Amino acid sequence: MEFKIDKETFLRALQKIQGIVEKRNTMPILSNVLIEAYADRIELTATDLEVGMKSSYGTTVTREGRITVAAKKLYEIVKELPEEIISFSTKENDWVEIRCGKAHFSIVGLSPEEFPYFPKVNEESLIRIEGALLADMIEKTSYAICFDETKYNLNGIFVKATVEDDKPILRMVATDGHRLSIAEKEFHGAVGPEMSKGVIFPKKGIFELKKISEEESTELALGFMDNSAVIKKGNTVVVMRLVDGEFPDYTRVVPVANDKIVTVARDPFLHSLRRMSILSSEKFKGIRMEINGEQMIISSSNPELGEASEELEATYSGPPLSIRFNAKYLLDVLAVLNENDVALVLRDELSPAIVKPAAMDGFTAVIMPMRL
Amino acid sequence: MEFKIDKETFLRALQKIQGIVEKRNTMPILSNVLIEAYADRIELTATDLEVGMKSSYGTTVTREGRITVAAKKLYEIVKELPEEIISFSTKENDWVEIRCGKAHFSIVGLSPEEFPYFPKVNEESLIRIEGALLADMIEKTSYAICFDETKYNLNGIFVKATVEDDKPILRMVATDGHRLSIAEKEFHGAVGPEMSKGVIFPKKGIFELKKISEEESTELALGFMDNSAVIKKGNTVVVMRLVDGEFPDYTRVVPVANDKIVTVARDPFLHSLRRMSILSSEKFKGIRMEINGEQMIISSSNPELGEASEELEATYSGPPLSIRFNAKYLLDVLAVLNENDVALVLRDELSPAIVKPAAMDGFTAVIMPMRL
Repeated sequence: MEFKIDKETFLRALQKIQGIVEKRNTMPILSNVLIEAYADRIELTATDLEVGMKSSYGTTVTREGRITVAAKKLYEIVKELPEEIISFSTKENDWVEIRCGKAHFSIVGLSPEEFPYFPKVNEESLIRIEGALLADMIEKTSYAICFDETKYNLNGIFVKATVEDDKPILRMVATDGHRLSIAEKEFHGAVGPEMSKGVIFPKKGIFELKKISEEESTELALGFMDNSAVIKKGNTVVVMRLVDGEFPDYTRVVPVANDKIVTVARDPFLHSLRRMSILSSEKFKGIRMEINGEQMIISSSNPELGEASEELEATYSGPPLSIRFNAKYLLDVLAVLNENDVALVLRDELSPAIVKPAAMDGFTAVIMPMRL
Repeated sequence: MEFKIDKETFLRALQKIQGIVEKRNTMPILSNVLIEAYADRIELTATDLEVGMKSSYGTTVTREGRITVAAKKLYEIVKELPEEIISFSTKENDWVEIRCGKAHFSIVGLSPEEFPYFPKVNEESLIRIEGALLADMIEKTSYAICFDETKYNLNGIFVKATVEDDKPILRMVATDGHRLSIAEKEFHGAVGPEMSKGVIFPKKGIFELKKISEEESTELALGFMDNSAVIKKGNTVVVMRLVDGEFPDYTRVVPVANDKIVTVARDPFLHSLRRMSILSSEKFKGIRMEINGEQMIISSSNPELGEASEELEATYSGPPLSIRFNAKYLLDVLAVLNENDVALVLRDELSPAIVKPAAMDGFTAVIMPMRL
């Protein structure tokens, strides 16, 4: 194979697949990018067998062919090349030759025959979905994804299309066992059986999906095949194997008997939590909230450092209430919540608490209080 | 003690001493900042017994006194406080109270009696020196400082005032045994016996000195007392214990018999070295240079990855020459060398090489070639 490509395009193309490439080097071929040249374009493919990405770029191909090369090294080389046209060609025994300006690289590749199969995508089976909608819902839930790999069914976001109050909605849920986050948006689109039943998108795939959702153009296409989700946007296709497990029944986690509603302005609350958590221990970040009428007192203490407290204005009409939280859990929720006022919906100092925007639906976080 | 101070001033003051504070926590008092309030100002002092810094800030003091508090925690707290006036006061048993807006902190301090003595500086004994001159000379030599703590006499920069060709100069030298860097600048000032003999400024102190040399105002004052260097700039005094050791005779390291001069443009040389070093091993970064007339070929190879080469224009009139270097050593020199053209002054493939600006004096780097 032989093609020419400008540095900027090639660099961006190689950058895009760096997040997919397997870093643990268990199978050398997975550290490589598959480069294919056809007619007037090249295609770059990377996969770790769980998440794969293929992108295509128009360029001048003088000899068609396929090769795989170490993805990270190739990226490092291209990054340092001068801003000129790069000539890329294969030689015998899977060697690759790269020329740019007066620089010349011969690097050893691996046979494309060893590279894992990347599925062909039938575009007609995909549904259209707004990138901004997906990006926002992922942002609002991904902080709660469980990173403990032994709980594989929690290592992702549960995505389900359903109908609530006669409105079709898309719902995303993530939980790590200590907290839970649910985002919902109205969604009109022909959803298939997978989305109606609910599927678990894997963690790594979710972060790639968020990246491409945030890119400029607005719409992307989503579908399912062979236990995988397929996302297509522009000239890029991402395929991710869905997490094969049962997502816990999150509806049972959201408390229904919480009757004490405390409303507080988001920004002062967030800043106060940050301040108070400085004196709480590194590990538990415990803070105490005491709510009495219009007054909320947040406090923390640490036998080695001292104690801190701050008074905030709040709206609350129930009996005095005292409850402890891990400040990090509250801060994570407030970080993704853009509304001015936040409602804490509580029951008592031991029951799970709801955190949500005071004036709108579509987002519910549940966090467990800390026991003494 | 009791004083009020605006957040920005206090935060900047606390930020400034963070680099001095001892991180290893061997003596708890060294993790603390000493805060003293007198008349219309506060003074902040930090030290690790090797390098100390004291700065003073005008503010409203309502009760004079002294206290020490954990420097990092106090910085974290002040950083998160609202942009308002901070009230700082001491209570019984070395407790400190901080109030700002509605936030309130009580933190435990340590008695100021335990804080190490910070010397009084006699300003009249100090000489004036340009901050920009110091900053530039430190930049040009500090990359070669030895970080191996067992070679304590190399863990700093040797500074000496001398006269060369009837011109008074200031010289700085650093070496780690593999490479050496010498910077010289014309310097008119009354130098005392310490600078005439030569002193070794410690690594950590050098980096603090570089920071304050780079700050806005132009001049600083420098002097010596009790085996320490004293630097005063504005309202800040830095005292650093000089390295008590013999600096090696660097004049014997600079080769005098090198007779082959290769001139090459800095930028293409630097970029080519970066590219070529991608294929050299992580550990040794070995590259080969072959010079023949107007042509310099830089190359590298790696049994696992492949090989790379690049041709550069050079000016050279001696016999063909081939030499290997650790690319990192060359790149470190080129990074601090701002001139357009670089001269490599060589003898043969085993002898130390000189790297310097092609068209001016005042900077000489010596690096050892790599043997096969």
